[in-house]
Amino acid sequence: MASVRLDRRYAVIMAGGVGTRFWPLSREARPKQLLALAGPRSMLAETALRLRGTVPLDNILVATAKRYQRQVARELPGLPARNILCEPVGRNTAPCIGWSALEVAARTPDAVMAVLPADHVITPASVFKRELGRAFAEADSLERLLAFGVRPTGPATGYGYIKAGPRLGRGGRVRSVARFCEKPGLAKAKRFVADGNYYWNAGMFVWSAATILEEIERWLPELHRGLARMEAARRRGRIPQAAIDRIYPKLPGISIDYGVMERSRRAAVVAAGFDWNDIGSWDAVADLWPKDADGNASTGRLLSVDAHDNIVASEGRDVALVGVDGLAVIDSGDALLVCRRDKSQEVRRVVDALRARRRKDLL
Amino acid sequence: MASVRLDRRYAVIMAGGVGTRFWPLSREARPKQLLALAGPRSMLAETALRLRGTVPLDNILVATAKRYQRQVARELPGLPARNILCEPVGRNTAPCIGWSALEVAARTPDAVMAVLPADHVITPASVFKRELGRAFAEADSLERLLAFGVRPTGPATGYGYIKAGPRLGRGGRVRSVARFCEKPGLAKAKRFVADGNYYWNAGMFVWSAATILEEIERWLPELHRGLARMEAARRRGRIPQAAIDRIYPKLPGISIDYGVMERSRRAAVVAAGFDWNDIGSWDAVADLWPKDADGNASTGRLLSVDAHDNIVASEGRDVALVGVDGLAVIDSGDALLVCRRDKSQEVRRVVDALRARRRKDLL
Repeated sequence: MASVRLDRRYAVIMAGGVGTRFWPLSREARPKQLLALAGPRSMLAETALRLRGTVPLDNILVATAKRYQRQVARELPGLPARNILCEPVGRNTAPCIGWSALEVAARTPDAVMAVLPADHVITPASVFKRELGRAFAEADSLERLLAFGVRPTGPATGYGYIKAGPRLGRGGRVRSVARFCEKPGLAKAKRFVADGNYYWNAGMFVWSAATILEEIERWLPELHRGLARMEAARRRGRIPQAAIDRIYPKLPGISIDYGVMERSRRAAVVAAGFDWNDIGSWDAVADLWPKDADGNASTGRLLSVDAHDNIVASEGRDVALVGVDGLAVIDSGDALLVCRRDKSQEVRRVVDALRARRRKDLL
Repeated sequence: MASVRLDRRYAVIMAGGVGTRFWPLSREARPKQLLALAGPRSMLAETALRLRGTVPLDNILVATAKRYQRQVARELPGLPARNILCEPVGRNTAPCIGWSALEVAARTPDAVMAVLPADHVITPASVFKRELGRAFAEADSLERLLAFGVRPTGPATGYGYIKAGPRLGRGGRVRSVARFCEKPGLAKAKRFVADGNYYWNAGMFVWSAATILEEIERWLPELHRGLARMEAARRRGRIPQAAIDRIYPKLPGISIDYGVMERSRRAAVVAAGFDWNDIGSWDAVADLWPKDADGNASTGRLLSVDAHDNIVASEGRDVALVGVDGLAVIDSGDALLVCRRDKSQEVRRVVDALRARRRKDLL
């Protein structure tokens, strides 16, 4: 299978999320992808860095919300300004991906593009680079919509699953999709894991710009019509933000998974050989941070007495733990969260309560 | 029993402690008695205020460490400067009480004095005032060393106990002391409570200055000799701090309980009718602070989701608790403590560790 030339490779980094799960560090003005949760750089910067040598910087687009435009530019020095696509409002992933594909196709009609969330942790980078390079070639030659499937490490109920079907092409690595499954209950998740043909849907895709646009036209004609209007406007300017601002909010708010992948007969899945962590809550951060002998993961000055398996983030302040186990203690300077790790999904409820109280200073 | 005239009543507030149990709020430079743990004022100020109308301000002495002299003066405006007795070094309670008794006797030879720790919570103040007034009269007429005994609310193992003997005098409220008992184990504490004749030793005493000085002479002759040297120096000046600084460090470091009360045949106990709380650790603070419907005691802005029976102190910062029960969360601005309430005695170990690391900024 022939490798895809670098100038035909594109990547679209999806960086529009307004994560509330990492409160009090994440805020509306500083969402998860702009936090340095997994290293010295923001997750967005780490995501872009991971593409080095595999996708040219000029071919990396970042789709984000207007309010994050400046921060994105600051995180990615050298990224051309026109590569930042600013959604005037979030409309889920299908419109965002459609717009990105338009943009990519306008620059390079025979482009192959990867769609990558800005806030996942992927290691080692070398394996990712190799597999992404192969996926470009596979998507190109097979003319398929490729989804990376992550081999489940347990019966997670927080992810959608992809059931893989027969193998495709000669290389044998890519498999057709038997079906997409929404987030299952625990019993079903256990059956999926035992079956062996199910993968987690990591929301990472590779396809040619032409193929995804064709499939959007077929399965989401309303979105396609909107994109056509944007394309007409695009031809009258580079990124005609005024037209975007007018048209984009009217596009149907639907996910690419539900809108296209679950319906298309060209969906395919390739098993990821790299480690993947979407760090969905504070609980998952423990896997990324250095731990002491008692299993306490911390980035700051921690003093523990008979305390185990805690996660501590503090911006400068000393933290002492006495007799506590399995907590997340997150100090953002202006607010403090103390949460049981296994309840860290519930942090959303704190953010909801702050909204109800109109505490804009903490949102 | 005749009431003791106001000008013969004195109180000595013991405020020399360098509490480590309320870290990170308590520090070497800001010990427990100078914290506002139980109301808008420091515990020292609350203790002095509780004497209003019962002991004249001019007759209140505060025994403290030299380093707290200025803070004590600030907490007690109107207190004559010479009423602050500055120990050059802590020598336990007997030397401190002996020195105070000397000072009181020099001002008013037939004085009756109360000895009161600066860091206890006593309610209601009206009952305390009434009982203290009666104790002045009882100590004066019976010529006894009176200890307030607190009726146990449970088999506490953190206090010494006083076993009361037969009643003394006509009023019948004061009882002789059968014996003093050191902090018992749990089984013994349960027997004490079941017996009904045992009281907690709250470290609050009432006696005439002459009586305590006689008993010190009898049971602690070495201390008495040191006090005699201080008295000789005292006659040559008002508070001859230079002589104190020379003599005081050589006095035997012993408690009044062990040195005098346990030996003297003039010890007596009077049951306290007021509520008493020595708030020995963060755990006990919950009794003093307002609680929400879930039992969370807090002085600041607290947002709780499925969290119960926690104690939260924060200087200005918002705190969110998710799914946690029975924690003390104490934020001093420069440090943060998260501690299981039932382990709050272990906070000392944090302070020990900070000492070992020479973290003077946090001590």
